[in-house]
Amino acid sequence: VKSVLLSLVLLSLVLLLPIMLVDGQTQPPAPIISPEVHSDNRVTFRFRAPNAKEVSLELEGAKPVLMQKDDQGVWTMTTDKLEPDFYGYMFIVDGVRLMDPRNQLMQPNLLETDSEVHVPGPSSLSWEVNPVPHGVIHHHFYRSTIVGDECDFFVYTPPGYDASSKKLYPVLYLLHGFSDDASGWTSVGRANVILDNLIAHGKARPMLVVMPLGYGDPEILAGGDATFDTFNQRNIERFRETLLTEVIPQVENGYRVDKNREARAIAGLSMGGEESLFTGLNNLDKFAAIGGFSSGLPEQFITTLDAQFPGVGASANSKLRLLWIACGTDDRLIANNRKMREWLKSKGVRVTEIETPGEHTWMVWRRNLSNFVPLLFR
Amino acid sequence: VKSVLLSLVLLSLVLLLPIMLVDGQTQPPAPIISPEVHSDNRVTFRFRAPNAKEVSLELEGAKPVLMQKDDQGVWTMTTDKLEPDFYGYMFIVDGVRLMDPRNQLMQPNLLETDSEVHVPGPSSLSWEVNPVPHGVIHHHFYRSTIVGDECDFFVYTPPGYDASSKKLYPVLYLLHGFSDDASGWTSVGRANVILDNLIAHGKARPMLVVMPLGYGDPEILAGGDATFDTFNQRNIERFRETLLTEVIPQVENGYRVDKNREARAIAGLSMGGEESLFTGLNNLDKFAAIGGFSSGLPEQFITTLDAQFPGVGASANSKLRLLWIACGTDDRLIANNRKMREWLKSKGVRVTEIETPGEHTWMVWRRNLSNFVPLLFR
Repeated sequence: VKSVLLSLVLLSLVLLLPIMLVDGQTQPPAPIISPEVHSDNRVTFRFRAPNAKEVSLELEGAKPVLMQKDDQGVWTMTTDKLEPDFYGYMFIVDGVRLMDPRNQLMQPNLLETDSEVHVPGPSSLSWEVNPVPHGVIHHHFYRSTIVGDECDFFVYTPPGYDASSKKLYPVLYLLHGFSDDASGWTSVGRANVILDNLIAHGKARPMLVVMPLGYGDPEILAGGDATFDTFNQRNIERFRETLLTEVIPQVENGYRVDKNREARAIAGLSMGGEESLFTGLNNLDKFAAIGGFSSGLPEQFITTLDAQFPGVGASANSKLRLLWIACGTDDRLIANNRKMREWLKSKGVRVTEIETPGEHTWMVWRRNLSNFVPLLFR
Repeated sequence: VKSVLLSLVLLSLVLLLPIMLVDGQTQPPAPIISPEVHSDNRVTFRFRAPNAKEVSLELEGAKPVLMQKDDQGVWTMTTDKLEPDFYGYMFIVDGVRLMDPRNQLMQPNLLETDSEVHVPGPSSLSWEVNPVPHGVIHHHFYRSTIVGDECDFFVYTPPGYDASSKKLYPVLYLLHGFSDDASGWTSVGRANVILDNLIAHGKARPMLVVMPLGYGDPEILAGGDATFDTFNQRNIERFRETLLTEVIPQVENGYRVDKNREARAIAGLSMGGEESLFTGLNNLDKFAAIGGFSSGLPEQFITTLDAQFPGVGASANSKLRLLWIACGTDDRLIANNRKMREWLKSKGVRVTEIETPGEHTWMVWRRNLSNFVPLLFR
């Protein structure tokens, strides 16, 4: 409903002209509509900054583009036709990254929340809300003794899930990327919408999806990108511990879950892809399916794979129902993802190798999830 | 964990200085920390806008204040000591309202998302996260035939809630204000934290809290404040219908809920206060406790009370366990809330009359909820 409400608001802002008069100005500022999605899927972005010297638009998956100022002090830029999808974007105003003040659609993030625009597409797109039964998202809070802080996780239960029935469900543990919070996969990745659609069309088995906060060591965030490499190893090791000893027990006590390893999968994007490979391959007694989407595999990790995965070899094939490693070909991480796959193959481990168009963006990961989930628990 | 992570990020932004160099500039921009909460509860806000002519700070519950620019183009303002609480704020930059780009704490809203600053206080404050058991927040999505759109509601279940046990819980239906979405009471109002604390300290009975999207007619939002009066009547009537025929049945089918009227309460803030009074007093067969916090009671409503509440009189007293009408004395709505109470008393209806310091702000409503919930289901 949020997007419909926002459309209503945007479409009728003209009504507000009389009350947008700013005290002390001789003429009213023009009413701003931003973003404006045209019927041909071009999008116009507008930002009012009469005194700024330079304003540019940074759109997810595209190079920054300078905007043009009109005589009302409004900076404007219209894109080419965009593929239907959700796109993050920001305005760079004299060097400062700002959200779009005319738009309440956002992509929550712990380092930088971006504005978001929806270019609607046909109902066949897995991330579009359709008139199908919807699952429920449950938000859990707990104090982690391993992390030493309050932590949280989300659980998607599929339509028809009934806590009092005897039916048991398989579980996908789905991990977010560096700088996301635990809501990333639902608020930006639209995982609940994707699961609703796949299940409604018989393309995926009804399953639970558990989305935990992915920081084993929150210090990894302290300096932004600059501290990722320093704390990465401790972060993934402690994350594995909190997942195995704190999150999974809460899920398996609180929900009707099949506890067999064949009914447990783990996947994630970027940092969460690294965590999925590290946790999954080192704990094949607990997971039978593993997915890495644009996995963040820093040099320190990719150059020490024998030590990261001490017991991993051809014997893994009998336990692995699926090892799915995907990356966009324009992603800066493609080289290390290829190295990871080559190392696995050199050890005799069978890998499903996926290369798609795209950069390090949510447009890639929503498609990854839509293609990965149908393969699970078959 | 979000606030701890953000503190880590803010405290160490200085580390980022080398990578904050902007291409083509001869000197690096100063690293900005905003907001900075000092140990004595003063707060410094900073915003970098080297070419802006005027920047002011709008802090929830205070008058706008001009900020001062330094030679780095950074606008700064330090407040007096603030009461520990959560405050929304915005920067007004040459007439344009902007969020703080250095701060990822936000107050989601359908018309204007604000930045938020937390001035921490003692653990005795009901909205501070404490090491007590935490309830779970469940997010439900459904298509409303009455609203004609996708709608949602949140359900808080208290610590220890077990869907497979036989225990039945009472339910508070808790309604947000105009321009909020269904997440308002948890994301800004911290209702789950408040309930966790009250329950842990034996001050409230364990209960469910259901927080539905409060727009019976989404057109009420189309023109912002300008369309509130026009669509208010249709909005509250359709909201009542969707609550009674769509939301409550889903809750009572999906959760272990006591369906007796004595175990059902309704309360809300602003528009949600009006909806609570309208729905509650006109449906005493379904609700035994009613709360209005700074209820939005437009002229068209307050001048037609006999028609709004046709059957309401002294006979209501035997059904009402609690009718609690609160408003801040500095709220522009205090006059109409007093009129509402006087009308009820003129009809012989007993009212708990609460006037507190404060304006039309969340600081008032968090305290209202903290004082109202302990009175329920006794």
